[in-house]
This record gives sequence, C-alpha cells and structure tokens, in this order.
Amino acid sequence: MTNMPISAELVAEHNAASRDALSDEYDSLGRKLGRRGIAIDAIKEKVKSFGVAVPSWGTGRGGTRFAKFPLAGEPTNIHEKLEDCAVIHQLGRSTPGVSPHFPWDCVDDYTALREEANAYGLVFDAVNSNTFQDQPGQAHTYATGSLSSTVEATRQQAIDHNVECIEIGKQIGSKALTVWVGDGTNFPGQQDLGRSFDRYLAAASQVYSALPGDWKMMLEHKMFEPAFYSSVISDWGSSLMAAQQLGDQCKCLVDLGHHAPNVNIEQIVARLHHAGKLGGFHFNDSKYGDDDLDSGSINPHQLFLVFNELIEAELSPGKGFDPSYMIDQSHNVTDPIESMLSSAETIAGCYARAAMVDRDALHAAQDGNDVMLAFRTLRTAYETDVTPILAMARDELGGAIDWLGVYRSSKYRDRKAQERKAVGLGAGIV
Amino acid sequence: MTNMPISAELVAEHNAASRDALSDEYDSLGRKLGRRGIAIDAIKEKVKSFGVAVPSWGTGRGGTRFAKFPLAGEPTNIHEKLEDCAVIHQLGRSTPGVSPHFPWDCVDDYTALREEANAYGLVFDAVNSNTFQDQPGQAHTYATGSLSSTVEATRQQAIDHNVECIEIGKQIGSKALTVWVGDGTNFPGQQDLGRSFDRYLAAASQVYSALPGDWKMMLEHKMFEPAFYSSVISDWGSSLMAAQQLGDQCKCLVDLGHHAPNVNIEQIVARLHHAGKLGGFHFNDSKYGDDDLDSGSINPHQLFLVFNELIEAELSPGKGFDPSYMIDQSHNVTDPIESMLSSAETIAGCYARAAMVDRDALHAAQDGNDVMLAFRTLRTAYETDVTPILAMARDELGGAIDWLGVYRSSKYRDRKAQERKAVGLGAGIV
Amino acid sequence: MTNMPISAELVAEHNAASRDALSDEYDSLGRKLGRRGIAIDAIKEKVKSFGVAVPSWGTGRGGTRFAKFPLAGEPTNIHEKLEDCAVIHQLGRSTPGVSPHFPWDCVDDYTALREEANAYGLVFDAVNSNTFQDQPGQAHTYATGSLSSTVEATRQQAIDHNVECIEIGKQIGSKALTVWVGDGTNFPGQQDLGRSFDRYLAAASQVYSALPGDWKMMLEHKMFEPAFYSSVISDWGSSLMAAQQLGDQCKCLVDLGHHAPNVNIEQIVARLHHAGKLGGFHFNDSKYGDDDLDSGSINPHQLFLVFNELIEAELSPGKGFDPSYMIDQSHNVTDPIESMLSSAETIAGCYARAAMVDRDALHAAQDGNDVMLAFRTLRTAYETDVTPILAMARDELGGAIDWLGVYRSSKYRDRKAQERKAVGLGAGIV
Amino acid sequence: MTNMPISAELVAEHNAASRDALSDEYDSLGRKLGRRGIAIDAIKEKVKSFGVAVPSWGTGRGGTRFAKFPLAGEPTNIHEKLEDCAVIHQLGRSTPGVSPHFPWDCVDDYTALREEANAYGLVFDAVNSNTFQDQPGQAHTYATGSLSSTVEATRQQAIDHNVECIEIGKQIGSKALTVWVGDGTNFPGQQDLGRSFDRYLAAASQVYSALPGDWKMMLEHKMFEPAFYSSVISDWGSSLMAAQQLGDQCKCLVDLGHHAPNVNIEQIVARLHHAGKLGGFHFNDSKYGDDDLDSGSINPHQLFLVFNELIEAELSPGKGFDPSYMIDQSHNVTDPIESMLSSAETIAGCYARAAMVDRDALHAAQDGNDVMLAFRTLRTAYETDVTPILAMARDELGGAIDWLGVYRSSKYRDRKAQERKAVGLGAGIV
Repeated sequence: MTNMPISAELVAEHNAASRDALSDEYDSLGRKLGRRGIAIDAIKEKVKSFGVAVPSWGTGRGGTRFAKFPLAGEPTNIHEKLEDCAVIHQLGRSTPGVSPHFPWDCVDDYTALREEANAYGLVFDAVNSNTFQDQPGQAHTYATGSLSSTVEATRQQAIDHNVECIEIGKQIGSKALTVWVGDGTNFPGQQDLGRSFDRYLAAASQVYSALPGDWKMMLEHKMFEPAFYSSVISDWGSSLMAAQQLGDQCKCLVDLGHHAPNVNIEQIVARLHHAGKLGGFHFNDSKYGDDDLDSGSINPHQLFLVFNELIEAELSPGKGFDPSYMIDQSHNVTDPIESMLSSAETIAGCYARAAMVDRDALHAAQDGNDVMLAFRTLRTAYETDVTPILAMARDELGGAIDWLGVYRSSKYRDRKAQERKAVGLGAGIV
Repeated sequence: MTNMPISAELVAEHNAASRDALSDEYDSLGRKLGRRGIAIDAIKEKVKSFGVAVPSWGTGRGGTRFAKFPLAGEPTNIHEKLEDCAVIHQLGRSTPGVSPHFPWDCVDDYTALREEANAYGLVFDAVNSNTFQDQPGQAHTYATGSLSSTVEATRQQAIDHNVECIEIGKQIGSKALTVWVGDGTNFPGQQDLGRSFDRYLAAASQVYSALPGDWKMMLEHKMFEPAFYSSVISDWGSSLMAAQQLGDQCKCLVDLGHHAPNVNIEQIVARLHHAGKLGGFHFNDSKYGDDDLDSGSINPHQLFLVFNELIEAELSPGKGFDPSYMIDQSHNVTDPIESMLSSAETIAGCYARAAMVDRDALHAAQDGNDVMLAFRTLRTAYETDVTPILAMARDELGGAIDWLGVYRSSKYRDRKAQERKAVGLGAGIV
Repeated sequence: MTNMPISAELVAEHNAASRDALSDEYDSLGRKLGRRGIAIDAIKEKVKSFGVAVPSWGTGRGGTRFAKFPLAGEPTNIHEKLEDCAVIHQLGRSTPGVSPHFPWDCVDDYTALREEANAYGLVFDAVNSNTFQDQPGQAHTYATGSLSSTVEATRQQAIDHNVECIEIGKQIGSKALTVWVGDGTNFPGQQDLGRSFDRYLAAASQVYSALPGDWKMMLEHKMFEPAFYSSVISDWGSSLMAAQQLGDQCKCLVDLGHHAPNVNIEQIVARLHHAGKLGGFHFNDSKYGDDDLDSGSINPHQLFLVFNELIEAELSPGKGFDPSYMIDQSHNVTDPIESMLSSAETIAGCYARAAMVDRDALHAAQDGNDVMLAFRTLRTAYETDVTPILAMARDELGGAIDWLGVYRSSKYRDRKAQERKAVGLGAGIV
Repeated sequence: MTNMPISAELVAEHNAASRDALSDEYDSLGRKLGRRGIAIDAIKEKVKSFGVAVPSWGTGRGGTRFAKFPLAGEPTNIHEKLEDCAVIHQLGRSTPGVSPHFPWDCVDDYTALREEANAYGLVFDAVNSNTFQDQPGQAHTYATGSLSSTVEATRQQAIDHNVECIEIGKQIGSKALTVWVGDGTNFPGQQDLGRSFDRYLAAASQVYSALPGDWKMMLEHKMFEPAFYSSVISDWGSSLMAAQQLGDQCKCLVDLGHHAPNVNIEQIVARLHHAGKLGGFHFNDSKYGDDDLDSGSINPHQLFLVFNELIEAELSPGKGFDPSYMIDQSHNVTDPIESMLSSAETIAGCYARAAMVDRDALHAAQDGNDVMLAFRTLRTAYETDVTPILAMARDELGGAIDWLGVYRSSKYRDRKAQERKAVGLGAGIV
C-alpha cells in the first residue's frame, strides 16, 4: 500500500493514545478465554487474515424510489470510489477487495484502473453485471426482462453485457462474475413461470460458457423488487436448480436481505454447502424487505449464526469450497465510509465469535441431545465482547484502533466536499 | 363533461356491437340474483353512483429504486395528467375525482386548473403534500425527517408546505388533506422513538389548526420504506393515537399495501370505523411490501372483504362517516390508463359483490354460530360474476362496455407519444 | 358404490327441486363461454373426471395446542371415518380417494378394510406415516427427532414404521407413501444443521429402498411447527435436494400452508415441475402459518393460480407427471363433512376455471409482452362463476346439486351423535 | 426464604470454586466501564433489584398441537410447580414472582397456598384467567368464543370466571389480572368483526368493574392462534382501544411473540407508554409465530431494544408507570427450570445493557442527527459482556454463580422423577 488517503501520523497518534486501555482489555479477555481453553492470539490471527470485499457502488449515498439525499463529498466516479475504499481499508484493514459494477464503473483503461487500485493496497473482487436498468443509447430495453426476456435480441444483449463484464474482469484481476437480474413480473399471467425460467437458463448458459476455467459464476436470488409478483430467480431453490444445470463453476450467492420473512438463512447456508453450491455472500441487514441496512445493525445474532455455519463448513469443506464475502448495502443516512468500516468490523466480529465456539463441547452436546448445553455453548461465544481482538488486529496491521475517531479527525469528507462535484437530487441507488 | 378525449362515436360503435351479448348476460344474472331475492337493477344503480378517485401521479409510469422504464406518451405535467384522467373517466365512468400532489402539480393559476378539470367532468379530491423529498432550491433538507425532524426550521418548513397545500386545495375545490411522511430511521438508536412521535404530533397539530371547518385531514400510516428500521406513523395504532390527539376532523387513511405481512386489513377497517376515525383508502394490491400493484390483481378476495366491512359500516354509520376512496398505484409495466380502468372496475366490482351479500342471512348465521352458512353466504356473493352489472352501468352512463377495446382502438397513447415530450431514464416514482 | 350413507331418494328429491334453476344457469353460462370459444360441456366433463383425496384424520374435529372442541357424532375409528368419507363422496362425487394415517388408522385386517372402503365407492390414496408423536408403549421417543435423530435406534424405529406403512399400503391398494417429519430444533445450536440433514437422507434412503417399483414416495416440507427454530425439511429447496438424492420415485409434496409469508407458491409448483419432482399437493388455506383452514377460504385466487400452473404442466408434462391431489385441513369450528364438501367443490372450481383460460390468447399476450391482456385473460377465467358447471357435474354423477341442503336434511350427524361414542376434551389434532 | 429446595452448601461450594475467576472478570469489566464513565457497582445494584415473574404453567413441559414429550419429574400440580419456581429463584435470585393460571392452579385453601409460596421466598404476581378451553363439567362451551361470544350465557360464564380469578388473586396477594382470550374466527364471515368487538368490550367492562382500586387489568393481544382468520384483540391498536374504553386501571400487555412478522415491537412499547397504557410484558422469543421459545434465544438484540425503551420510559415516566415483567414460554425440549434460569439471566442482562447506555451521548447524537454515533452508542452497550455483573449479583444475593452447574449437580430433577407421578402422552400446553 503506497497510497494512503489518511495521514499515517494521525493514525499512529490516535493509536498511541488508546493502546494502554486496549492492552488491558485484550489481556483481560485473554485470561477469560484462556479459562475456556481458547488462545486469544489464535483468534486474533484468524481475524487478521479475514477479509470482506466492499462494493464500489456502496461508497455513494443510496436512496429509495422516493428520494435520495446526497452527501457532500460523495464520489461520482470509480476513481473517487477507489479512494474511499482505500480509506476504509487503511483504517479497518479487513476490506482489501473492491467489487465493481458495470457499466457504472466503466473506464477506458482497465490496466490502469487495476494499478490504481493496487497502489491503494486494493484488489478487484467479483464483477457485477447490470441488466436491470436501461442505459442511455442502449439498443434494447430491459423493460421486458433481460436474460429471460421473450425478445431474443434483448436476451442476446444481456448475454453480451455479461460476457463483456468477464472480459473487463480478466483485465482487472477478478476471478468471479456475480449475476443478479431483476427479471420477473408484476401481474399473475404476465409471463409463464416455467418458460421464463427456461429462457433464463438458456441465456445464462451462454454466459457460463464464456467463463474462464479458474473463475466462478455466482447467481444471486432475490424474493422481490423490482418485480412484485414473481421473480425468475426468487429463492435459493431456483438458484440451486440453475447452478446445477449450468455447471460446476456456477454457484449460488446468498444476500442476507433477499429472503422471505422469518426464513432461517443459516440453514440455507448449510444446504447450499451440502450441495457444493455455496458461492458467496452479500452482507447487509434488513427488517422488512431488501432494506440494505448496515450488516448486523438489525439482527447481529443472525449474522453470527451464518458465520457459525461457515465455520462448520470450513471444518467439513466440500470440493472447491471457497465462498466470497462481500458487503452490499445502501447507505441512505450515513457517511458510507463510516458505515462500511462499522459493517466490516461487525462482520469480522461475528467471524471471531464463531471461531471461538467450543466445537467439541457443541458437538458433544448435540450428539447427546443436551439442548441447553448446546445452546449455551453457542451463546457463550456470541456474548463475548470481541472488540479488543478486532482493535488489536487492526493496530498490528497498521489500521486504526478507533477508526471512527481517526476518520472524523481527518476531515476527509469535508476535504472531498471541496474537491468533488456535487451529486444532484433524484431517487434510487445509482 | 364537455371535453372528451376519446371519440364518442367510437364508444357508441363499440357499445352497439357488444350490447346483445351484454343483455343476455345481464338478464341471466338478473334471473339468478332474483332467485336469491336480489334485484339486479338496484345493485346496478348503486354501482352507477359509486366513485373512486385517481391519483394525478398514477398517470405516469412508476419505477423502483433500481429503474424506471418510461412509456412513450406518458404525461409530464398536470395538464396532460388531467387529460389522461379524463380518458379514464370517460370510458369507465367511475372515477370523477382526481387527487393531486404538490409540489408535483403546482401551477400558476389554480382557478384555471379547476376549470380545466371541470371541463373534463372531473373534480379535485384530497390534496397530497410531499415532505419526503427535497425539491431544488429548498431551504431545509428532509434528510432528517420532516414533521418529526429534530431541526425546528425543517419542521416549520414541512408545516408551511402542508398549509400551502390546504390553500391550494381551497382554490381547486378539494375538501381534504392527506398527509404521508417518510419520517423514520434506518438504525436502532438513530432517533428516540417517543420524542420523534412527540415532535410529529406537535407539528401535525399546527397543520390541523389551519384546516377549514368543512375539511378532513387524513393521516396515512406505512410500515416501512423509505425508512427501514422505524417509521413515525408505521401502523394503524400510531395513526389512531395521532388522529385522536389532533381532533375530530383528523382521520386515518388505510393504504392496502402499508401493513405488516399477514395482517387482517378488513379488521383494521372495522376497528377504525368503531373509533370514528375511518377517513379513507388508498387502493392498490401487494404481495410483498408496498408493491403498489393494480387493485385486486394479487388478492381480489381481500379487497372484497374490505368492501364487506364498508357495507357493514354504511349500515351502522357513526357520526360523520364518509370515507374517501382513492386509487394509489405505481404502474411500472402497463399503460397507466389501462391499469386504472382495470382497477376502478375491480374496485367497483368488489363494491357490487359486497352490496349483494344477503345481510339478513349472514347476520342470522353469525348470531347462530352457523359457521359454514355464514361463510358460504359471503362466498356466494364473492363468486358472483358481476361483470354484466358493471358493463351495463357503464353503458347507461355513456362509458364503454369494452373499455380496453375502445381505448386501444382510439390509439390515444400513440397520438400522445407524438405530441408529448419524452421522459428520461431514471429511477423512482416521480 | 353399493353402500350409500345418505338416502338416494333424498338426494333425488332435492335435485329435482333445483334442476330448473340449474338448467337456466348452466345454459346461460354456456352461451357466455361459447362467445369466448369455450364449450361448456367439455369443461363439465373435465370436472367430472377430476378427483381429490380426503384425509381420514380430517373427518374428526381438529384443534390447536390450546384446545379442541369436540363435535357430537364425530368419528372415533377408521370405520366411522370411512363412513363419513362415503357421505362426502356420495354428495360431492369428486373425492373417491381416502388418504389414511398410521398408526391412527391401524386395524387387524387390511383386506377387509379395503373391501369396506370399496363398498362405499372409495379407494385408498397415499399412506401417511407418523413419526412426530410418541405412541403408548413405543420403544424409542421421537423427542430427539425421528429419521434425523442422533439416536440410531430411534432412526431405525422411524424407518421400520415407514416400511410398515408401505406394507399396509400394499394391502389396501395404495401406490404412494407421504413422509412428513416434525424433526427440527427450537434453539440455535441444538443440532448441527448439516449433519441432521445427512442423517435424514441416510434414513430416508432406507425407506426409499423398500418402495415397490410402481409406488412414489412424497416428501412433505414444512417451514415450522412443531420445531420453531429449524426444521430438517423446511422448504422446497431442501425437499428437492432430498428427492434428487433419493431417486426417481421420490417426489416433493406441496402443502399450501407450509411456506414462508408472501412466498409465490405457484412458482414453486412450476419449479418442481421443471425439475420433474412435483409429486402432489396437500390442499388447505392459511393466513398466518400452517392454519389448515378450508381450501380457498382465505385466498381463493392463489388456489386458482396453483391450478393454472397445473394446467400448464399438464400441457407440457415431463416423464411420469402425475401429481396426487389431497385435502389436508384441520376442521376446528365446522362439521368436517361440510368443510370437505365445500373444499372439494372449491378445488374443483379452481380446476374448472384454470381449464377455461384461453391458453392461446394467454401465450400470445405473454410472448408479445402485452401485460394487461395477459393478466385479463387469466382474470376473466377466474371471475367466471363456475358453480353451474360443478352442480351439473354432480347431478349427472348422482351427487347432490345442493349438497349442504341435502346433508343437513339427512340429519346424518345427529344420528351419528346418537350412535357413536363421545370424544373427550383435550388439545391437538388427533 | 426458609424453604430452599437445593442444598445451600452445594451452592456455596460451587460459588467458592468460581469466585476468583469471577472477580477478575468483574474487575476487568469495571475498569472498562469506568473508562466509559460508568460505575459497574451501580449497574450491579440495579440488577440486584430487578425481578421478572415466572409462569406457574411454564414449569411443565409444553407441546404443540402435534405432540408433547413429557419430562420425567415435571410437576403435576401447583404445589410441585411452586417448588420448581423456588429452585429457579434460589439459584437465579431474579424471579421472586409466580404468575398463576386458573383453573389450572385451583386449590381449596388459597391462604395456605400463599404461605406455601412465601416460605419459598416467592410471591404471587398477576393472575391469569382461562376462557380459551372447556373444562370438564363446564356449563357453556367456549367453542363460540368467550367474552365476545354471541351466546349471552357463555359471556356471563366468562365474566364470572374472571371475577373469580380476581377473588382468588386477592387471597394470594396478587394485584393484577391478565386477560387473554382466544376469541376469533377461522372463516371470513364467521362473525361480524365490529359486533364481536362490541360484545368483548361490554363483557370486559363487567370484569373491569369488579377490579379492586389498587389492581390493574392487563389485556393481552395476539395476532392469531387459536383463531386463524381473525382474533378479537389481535393487535396493540385493538388492545389500546379496549383499554381506553375500559378505564384507567386497564392497560395493555405486550407478549413478544404475538405480533405480525417484521413488526417493530420496541416502537409499540414506546407508543403504549406514550398513551399511558403500557401494563406489562410476557417475555419469550419467536422466529415464526407464537413460538414461545426461550427469551432472547432467537433475537437477543430485539430484547435489548425493548429494554432500551423501558429505560427511556423510566426516565420519562407517565402517571402510574409500573410495568409488570413476566416470562411466558413453552418449554418443549428442555428442562423448564434450566430454561427459565437461562431466560431470566438473559432478560436481566438486557436490562443491565440498557441501563449502561450512555444516555447523554445518545440523546446528543440523536438531537444532532449523528446517525452513526447514535447507533454505536447503543451498540457499544449491547456488545458489552455483562455476565460478570449478573453472576456477581447472584453471588451477593445468595444465588449460584454457575446456576447450570449447581442445578445439574443437585440432581433435583432425577429426585423429582422418583417422587412425582408421570405425565401421560398428549398434545398441547396444559
């Protein structure tokens, strides 16, 4: 990392001021975990090697169909987005990957873009295609769907766009394509539910055949929105069927906000792992629908339970098990940099908690049907305050113990508000 | 009605071609209903006097936060919207009212606007204020809320806007103000749930005090969106509490898509009627959230059950019982004129079915706990195909028996696509 | 049918009194359908050959965990249940199959039981096993699960019971086994979500290997209850994975009340059909959870949409497409005979409506993205009042035009209340 | 407390073995909190004075409508239930109250019963009436409802039963009556939604008039079950309307599992407090419906947010603010004593976390619309591991630091399995 947007001295100064308190907390927690037979340093090392990608689009203010309230200094192009991602990774040290979105992040020179990212200590994670919006000058509208459209030229355009995303991805060092389509219907009868799935499968297969041998293609299901009666890939079952038909390199992506109410998401994780199809995650949180709130802000326990399944999966990995972790949030009321630092910390914290579950005790209690003991074994790990571990990991990696304090002291956003052009009023996520 | 956008000859010609079949169907249904003791002509007369308002904003294509797919020929100002509303009412004859939205429908001369509407045979229904979006040049942002904002100047601006809406409403002949705010939070802790309600109540009271003595003010609750953790007026209980505190002229508005999953909406109708606070409806349908789909397209039986409560309420009206009926839909994939004609017909059909329930038999079965008979009494009415009654009512009022056939024959939208300026790409509802 | 519980004279007498009105309604509808290009007699013939099985346990009063309110004269053994099923089929003529449940319906002589059913004009449909309850004297408890239990002896007991059900099924002429287990957990951590699925699959495979070559085995998923945190086969995705692993004769059963809120069930039907795994249905209705209400009583439109998919599936059948149709309801407040007659009529009515959809027009509108026309094509069929067709079909088959009138006139239940022993207070479904 | 079911020596011995580790953890946490400006001892004192009542019925195994799996040694009468409650309070020291249920807990001599409880250090909390089940020999069935029944004699019987509960409550020292009715319908049309509410209000008013001046009456709403289409008091809005009409002593009770999916329960708490109608809580947890799982086992963060509102309410109490706290759970797979000890600890932990929120910082961030800071102020308190505070509070009060270890060492349940008569198979909650 040669290009650091925040002054290293500022970070060092803040860290120095917090280090005594942190040491006390870390040592206290170390003694506590030691009494449970857990070495705190081992957990810290796991945290230090944990990473979650951030979405390029998440660096800007998001909005709803009703409105967007712009933030002074928010980025307006991929270069500014990368700079913001660099801030996030510099202070938090757990987000080395950036997941780009096309055509939003299109540039003329992708080799230069890759070098620009690398100079920040960043790499490009999964590329995301966009066939849910029409772009100015686009030949065929996606109003009738994209990969599942009844219109052959539209399907071909959507296929071509995905293949183009793969081509861009090769240039920027990505190894995965994430495909989410908004295809679906708003009326019973609008489309035949079977034939639209057939068309989707045929078109997605053509995308799949353009996939390099060391890539994976991830299908992202979503229950509803933008389609409000049916969606072509609405649930994990449809996603699984499609991934099975497309081939070994095709996997399922789980976005935490794309499920029906009350659904047990951690069990879906276990099922997809069982099927060898767990491709990756879009982390966020939600209370009602695809709210795209900050990860763990609404139901932190659920996020922990997801990571508990991931740890179990790591212990019994199937062939090629290597899930991708990405944040996918809409920051409508906060500074996106703060939200992603907070979210990445929350996600790493859930990973740490899941890693410190006494697995032998848990499995023994499960095998013996000692329900209370099994529950409490999990709960003890969940209730552990892991903030000292996370902060110590950041400190050792050169990040900020108190990332919020440092970030605000840096006046980064204020400076950008001077430099960057303003975003206009409007609605939506772009 | 002096200004008819569709050729009266075209309507007459189509009607003449359908009349024999319609007579057979109407007479057949008349004999069937007669055997149940129901006079079909009485039901038809009720239908002829039934009306539901259409929203000015519903004449344009809606969209989601992801995208909007414009329709060639959609209206771009209140004058074009009125023209489209005139088409709807000319063919369907059940939508004489237009519900405007400010500042979207602001003009210089409201007296002229009223006359323009009247010339189409239209009147203005409830006015809608907008404090959920920032407008260009606005002094204070609604990013922190509007009537419930912590910022006094913002609250005052929201109050002033609502008062201005009342003033406009007086000029255009409206007698009601509908207040929906998007105020709420995306994070636990973002605002205090009690104090934000206090601020809302204080500000809304100031709006209420500007209300003319013959107006009503309707509070529209919504579970979520644009706020995804909490909303200030999220449910009918909060709406009721606010309406109780504001005063007798303040009532609750029920939008069919603004409730938690599985909720029994018809019982909410009954409860609000019991409290003397049933102010009106925003009709639409939904499967997942506030999907704003066409009325009755997803769950037509629920719409019937709502009208069943309204008929019961009519039979036991409280003081001042006079609910407003409005459509509030987002037409993302259809021609809005077709959707509103279809929706108005569906709504009138539910009213007709509810009106033909054998109330004496129903009440006797209820009193005697004859569950099956009570259920079947209601169900018999629901299963009645009332299309001949609706078509005959339209015919007699000068509308179109086959409104879809006439509308498409008229090539109205194609003509407008030539005349009107195009709408750009974007997202959202505006 | 040699053994008819209701006097044939009574039926004939009632039918005679209703026939003129029915003829008028049937003829009127015939003219109406004729104008749409549909031959009413063809629809009637389809209805006459349509059948849905009734569950033996559904003939008794059901209850909740809080209470059961017994009905005087309800059956207390399989012989009395068969007699009640005979009444249902005699009057409604669309329920020739009875789906038994073991050990609830265990007898000494199954050959005699089969003959007893046949004498009523009934046959036995899918057999249902029960490993969700402990029976007096049972060696191993299902408190820890059944097919997925950590206890090997318990799993073996559950396997043995299912194999025994197959053996009984062979004797009574059944060709299918329906397996629903209540296995799951109430606490995070109680069981490992992956390993419990492994155990389920291994045990279910052993049941599958006992399946005769001309049978099918149907897996019934359920979101929750009796387990409230996780269920081993909680959704259609898990059911599909299990059915794929077990083999070609293993299919998925869709119970309409076993899904998450808001889920698009008709799309699940389409997906399972696409996968060649649509085994059958348990029809009922629900508003909140697995409410087990009368079919179509809450959301009749959804039931129609399910049948619309079934008609599409019939037109594009995969290998071995032959779904089983069964009612599965809990009659807590009605006479079960009345509820099943009403439900069977509702189900047949949805089938009739789906059969009269103008498929060519629908498909053309879908292919042309004419959303409104596609929707209205479906809706026109849904809104058709098919009661004359259903009644005419019953009349021609010897059933009752007005089944409720005949049943009540027969005083069947009153007589049974004299003859049968009373059921005690308690709770639950048994 | 003179009658302690568990050996005090065993408790002392276990505590002695854990005390060093606890001291280290408590002191470490004290330093950490000290750096935030919070005195740990003050929080501990609040915890020591916090209490939550346990339900007498919760001491037995619960079940579903499908089955109940009895636990060897579970109690079969109120005397044995009291003994189990004594174990819970002896070890946990936070559950001095027992909430009884009639007629389940009826005895001949209530004065003796009160003394029996007192000897265990227990008192009686709110009395619960039961009009959702028929009892052997009961004159009128509740099959048609109870307080809302169309049958006058049934309503009177329900009124009389509630009045009798008040009379019993006076004798045992209770000061509150909790009224939950299962009244509702399973079919649209079964009852008129308005008139059944009228009957409920009239009958409940008669119960209210029998209430002593220093009592409160709490209305418990529930969305569904046992009624599956409508429930008379289905939501907090209906509960509020009823409580408003009945009078000042009538309040609303919030059961955490009785809401629609996705509902913001903590906001309901804030609203009821605003209306002066927050009467009390039934604590439990749920994922799907009224699952009655252990408090905080599924969504511990939501429980914390509820307590956050309660702390805010304590700081701005209305007239007579004094909510009752009760556990109401169904222990289907655990030893109820262990579940209630775990639940009481979880509840007290949420109270402790809410009490240590930096309110000044929170309110300042809210007032300044510093969303991230407000959120993190709350989250910091939530993530604090308060187990040392809870354990120290128990130790100081004479309870068990490691209540699970002590309880299991005591072999209490094994002994009771020898002494108590076995519970038979069945279903349901009784």
